[in-house]
Amino acid sequence: MPNLHPDRLFPADSDTRNIARRLYQSIAQLPIISPHGHTQAQWFAEDQPFPDPAHLFIVPDHYIFRMLYSQRKIQMEQLGIGDSKGDNPREIWRVFASSYYLFRGTPTRIWLDFAFQELFGIEERLTAETADLYYDRISEKLSAPEFRPRALYERFNIEVLSTTDSALDSLQAHQQIRSSGWKGRILPTFRPDAVVDPDFANFAGNVKKLGAMYDEDTETWDGYLRALRKARARFKELGGTATDHGHPTANTANLDAASAQRLFRGVLSGSSSAAEREQFRAQMLTEMARMSVEDGLVMQIHPGSFRNHNEAIYRKFGRDVGADIPTATNYVDGLKPLLDVVGNEQNLTIILFTLDESAYGRELAPLAGHYPCLLLGPPWWFFDSPEGMMRFREYTTETAGFYNTVGFNDDTRAFLSIPARHDVARRMDSAFLAKLVAEHRLDEDEAFDLAQELTNDLVRRAYKL
Amino acid sequence: MPNLHPDRLFPADSDTRNIARRLYQSIAQLPIISPHGHTQAQWFAEDQPFPDPAHLFIVPDHYIFRMLYSQRKIQMEQLGIGDSKGDNPREIWRVFASSYYLFRGTPTRIWLDFAFQELFGIEERLTAETADLYYDRISEKLSAPEFRPRALYERFNIEVLSTTDSALDSLQAHQQIRSSGWKGRILPTFRPDAVVDPDFANFAGNVKKLGAMYDEDTETWDGYLRALRKARARFKELGGTATDHGHPTANTANLDAASAQRLFRGVLSGSSSAAEREQFRAQMLTEMARMSVEDGLVMQIHPGSFRNHNEAIYRKFGRDVGADIPTATNYVDGLKPLLDVVGNEQNLTIILFTLDESAYGRELAPLAGHYPCLLLGPPWWFFDSPEGMMRFREYTTETAGFYNTVGFNDDTRAFLSIPARHDVARRMDSAFLAKLVAEHRLDEDEAFDLAQELTNDLVRRAYKL
Amino acid sequence: MPNLHPDRLFPADSDTRNIARRLYQSIAQLPIISPHGHTQAQWFAEDQPFPDPAHLFIVPDHYIFRMLYSQRKIQMEQLGIGDSKGDNPREIWRVFASSYYLFRGTPTRIWLDFAFQELFGIEERLTAETADLYYDRISEKLSAPEFRPRALYERFNIEVLSTTDSALDSLQAHQQIRSSGWKGRILPTFRPDAVVDPDFANFAGNVKKLGAMYDEDTETWDGYLRALRKARARFKELGGTATDHGHPTANTANLDAASAQRLFRGVLSGSSSAAEREQFRAQMLTEMARMSVEDGLVMQIHPGSFRNHNEAIYRKFGRDVGADIPTATNYVDGLKPLLDVVGNEQNLTIILFTLDESAYGRELAPLAGHYPCLLLGPPWWFFDSPEGMMRFREYTTETAGFYNTVGFNDDTRAFLSIPARHDVARRMDSAFLAKLVAEHRLDEDEAFDLAQELTNDLVRRAYKL
Repeated sequence: MPNLHPDRLFPADSDTRNIARRLYQSIAQLPIISPHGHTQAQWFAEDQPFPDPAHLFIVPDHYIFRMLYSQRKIQMEQLGIGDSKGDNPREIWRVFASSYYLFRGTPTRIWLDFAFQELFGIEERLTAETADLYYDRISEKLSAPEFRPRALYERFNIEVLSTTDSALDSLQAHQQIRSSGWKGRILPTFRPDAVVDPDFANFAGNVKKLGAMYDEDTETWDGYLRALRKARARFKELGGTATDHGHPTANTANLDAASAQRLFRGVLSGSSSAAEREQFRAQMLTEMARMSVEDGLVMQIHPGSFRNHNEAIYRKFGRDVGADIPTATNYVDGLKPLLDVVGNEQNLTIILFTLDESAYGRELAPLAGHYPCLLLGPPWWFFDSPEGMMRFREYTTETAGFYNTVGFNDDTRAFLSIPARHDVARRMDSAFLAKLVAEHRLDEDEAFDLAQELTNDLVRRAYKL
Repeated sequence: MPNLHPDRLFPADSDTRNIARRLYQSIAQLPIISPHGHTQAQWFAEDQPFPDPAHLFIVPDHYIFRMLYSQRKIQMEQLGIGDSKGDNPREIWRVFASSYYLFRGTPTRIWLDFAFQELFGIEERLTAETADLYYDRISEKLSAPEFRPRALYERFNIEVLSTTDSALDSLQAHQQIRSSGWKGRILPTFRPDAVVDPDFANFAGNVKKLGAMYDEDTETWDGYLRALRKARARFKELGGTATDHGHPTANTANLDAASAQRLFRGVLSGSSSAAEREQFRAQMLTEMARMSVEDGLVMQIHPGSFRNHNEAIYRKFGRDVGADIPTATNYVDGLKPLLDVVGNEQNLTIILFTLDESAYGRELAPLAGHYPCLLLGPPWWFFDSPEGMMRFREYTTETAGFYNTVGFNDDTRAFLSIPARHDVARRMDSAFLAKLVAEHRLDEDEAFDLAQELTNDLVRRAYKL
Repeated sequence: MPNLHPDRLFPADSDTRNIARRLYQSIAQLPIISPHGHTQAQWFAEDQPFPDPAHLFIVPDHYIFRMLYSQRKIQMEQLGIGDSKGDNPREIWRVFASSYYLFRGTPTRIWLDFAFQELFGIEERLTAETADLYYDRISEKLSAPEFRPRALYERFNIEVLSTTDSALDSLQAHQQIRSSGWKGRILPTFRPDAVVDPDFANFAGNVKKLGAMYDEDTETWDGYLRALRKARARFKELGGTATDHGHPTANTANLDAASAQRLFRGVLSGSSSAAEREQFRAQMLTEMARMSVEDGLVMQIHPGSFRNHNEAIYRKFGRDVGADIPTATNYVDGLKPLLDVVGNEQNLTIILFTLDESAYGRELAPLAGHYPCLLLGPPWWFFDSPEGMMRFREYTTETAGFYNTVGFNDDTRAFLSIPARHDVARRMDSAFLAKLVAEHRLDEDEAFDLAQELTNDLVRRAYKL
């Protein structure tokens, strides 16, 4: 029996399901527009085969190993995290396969079943017993030319795919793609954490490097801002249309130039307090917004993750290993200083994300439903899931409408999961719209129009793609 | 095709829908009781025709222009906000009509479609193309005698309608209605912000004016309290049964008389800090509660709105233009000082509202499900919507039951939307009850009884109407 | 007409309901495992008949009298709360019966209807008119041998039942049960509030008593910790597998021994501030976690209740009379110090509960979905209800899966409600799983497997039963 049912994720009520089905059919074949994610430009520059199944699916996916680690029986080392010398990919795969039941009811299960069946043609359920069958089948396919990154990009019907790149990145891979003549549209996104967050590892060194890259004296406040402007321009040259800001809170600040300069000297010298470092990050969001007014880059703000919450795991395995935990986030007070400066700008787009769903109806929809510059990003991270998507629409639509939202982000490191994730989003949008139609809260022709908007039009407009 | 389906807002499942339909039919024709809103007594005193469609539907409705303004293409001035000299109402209407699609999925759309179809008999969808048809049809009707305020009041089958009036209001319009012999029951509600909130524009002057109106020396704490008592009595004389308190937080205080007096002198002189001004507001909620124990006026507390969040818009257009944003609200600590004083009074009703839905299950239902004086107001403002109403019941009923709630408030400035809003509330109550019946969590005869309670009985008892 | 419908609590959609029915049938007859509750070991030690209906159902149930008291018409004294001399149980019962309609839509109604019908065979609805019929029927049955505690334990098909006992309890009743040869498995749970919370009545005296009981000098930090270890060992000897910690917040601390000792001296002497008392509680959670690593007792943390919020009621009637109100709870910052010490221990289980549902998706599921020691307790107290259970699964499953949860706790003082509460849990689990199956998010064979896990297997493993 195949793992994927054609009606999956549609409401059970038969009238509603029929509407959902029709809506979905109208958008299922539309191109994928992926304006925010974490695939590597390198893959498309070099177009080499992906490695073995374990290093493709498990080792880079913190959704997977956080769940496995949480179950006490499995250690991070068994999953190839950390020092990977002597890894046995088949063993990693077997550990994973025999724990696959842990993912029942999670989006990871939906994404993986989709990839296994649609890309690799495997319809048996993944268990300890079928682990080797999976491993061999996937390994075999990965070596074929049609499983190279560029071929998959085309097969997935991707229209544009944005990566996320450090402000210090040379963007050489992006340059290489452009020079290669390949038609795929892989765009860089400007992510300045390393040079605007004083708590980032080697912050002062990074700021120095930024100065060197863009020939500015980044020990001065003005030189620093000029270097950032030039870096942004470099991203724009290579097709970038957006920036991305992952701060611990939504705090912003609006200091006068003298105070900002003083603060900058403090954080550079390493002498500043935690509160000053937070204030610097806050100020830099406002500076970035000002630059966005100038250069038109769309600003994405992703606040509210307590990074590396597990101290021991962080010391041993570093960042991004599943120990980031959301926190309550205050947008109303946090964003006010920034909005006082640029909130009514007509040439500015700021897309807000959250890990605190209680802010959807209380803060985010009312803010986006008033300020011209604000739009709401799709449900993020833990909430990129069927229930998460449904709640997002239920909590935001009545205040902000559909037109203050921006379609879907897959936000993934896992290239092979992109079609699955967009498919889930299209199904859930269809399910939500179908419910409105079935309850006579929306006419069916409007629902078809909105399905198109939510899939392609809103994202194109919001991200200028 | 008409815009209103007879089954709108009912659940799609056919058994549940049938129950909802029956419940709704049992309450659809009941009189409208509107204990809290923002219509103008003046309208009923003078009984003049309403102006053109734009000034009836758009210019006074912050739900509408916040959405239009948020979309970057439309400026406040185009909507007649601010200096209205030279307004072209037909142009305002056209701007609105061509953006009507923005309201898909919002309650504004439901309310307006209802008014357009039920009151003006228009069944075409509102678009750029039908803008003039709408404008002309509505304009024509508005000039007819049966569209005068008093005629509409009767046609809407309103039993009682409360306005919200400043403590400084002369209540002349209310007096005039009473003297006119007209049978409509328009009642004033005592709203003391202007004289109890030190951050209100011209606070000291307002307090002075209050003294003059009621012949008390409001420069002394005792004289100030006496004047407030007299003002409340004046509202009661004209039929008022309730007070209304719109504070930024739910904080209350319980100071001794000497400290309260000292605080009062400080806020009057303008020398007090933000914290002291907040403490004064907090103390005044407790004073108002004490007066309610004496005079029996029902107390409504509406906390948690960050007013005038958009500084530039506030400077240009003033209050109530769609830039108020909800904030997280702490009822448990905030209300404790007040409840320590009056929480167990048998002759006191306090109705709590919220803009922070996370407080429904966590704080509000447990508080109302214990304290004799506390009841829960209906979902408010952004949450006066189908999803908002369903969440209110889902989050509060299991702890507080139905009998610690107070029926529906339309809370509107838009007189013509009153039937639509009550209709939505009746449909959603029917939908919620129908779900309980369909899942065998409630017997059908009890659901019919509750439908009646939620529509008429609870509100009559809670507001003493 | 009977009050209980065989399909109660199942979704209305007929396909989904059919699946739910099948799932429920597969688990309906499984034994009850009750790892956390507030029944009295004494009952099973002495096996005496329960008293009259009022003292069985109403007087000990704060869910019931909080609702009645909230309605202004009913005083606590009428319900037999406080001084019970001269109580008339039949009168109490009549007051309750005539207000039974207040519980429409609440879990109390579901639990009681179940007990009335299934245990006492009464199918009329409880009203003022049927009050005496109920009273007489129940009274009669209660005197029969098959209504004694041990007989009911067997009839209810209970496999194991944990009580909650003060660290200062002699556990004599537990000893007596063991010695009696009766096969029922009644286990103590170690609840140390009285000796770890400086705000607990007579804290210093309690600590002294602990020292006397376990022959340690509890005026020293080391002696105090040793006495606690011995007390825990005593609970383990009598079959206890878990501890229970009911703190006002989720704060934990990780002080060095010298600071902890200093803090201990302060709280013992009564000279410490509120902040220091909170820090002591915080430190003691970490100490308890360390002891759990040593002795293997499962740790339950129940934070976030503002106890005795109603000052006047507390002074008059004491603790646990329905005036405890939930508060917003911060797990991410609060638990970090403890998790820094023991978060990666393989021999530690900490079960987290919440009264702040906004933490489910934002904090609790991400924490449990990463840390090996953390599991999520079932929805607690106000949220032990159909909607509460559904939200718990909807908000936690996609991030933490099913396997980081621990099945159901009935958490009750009302022995006769135990079958009803487990029945509700099984129905809601079936309803949730049925929805996943109907929407093709889970295969049906997996749902049957999970139904078994959620009912028996997870709780056995988590609580080591």
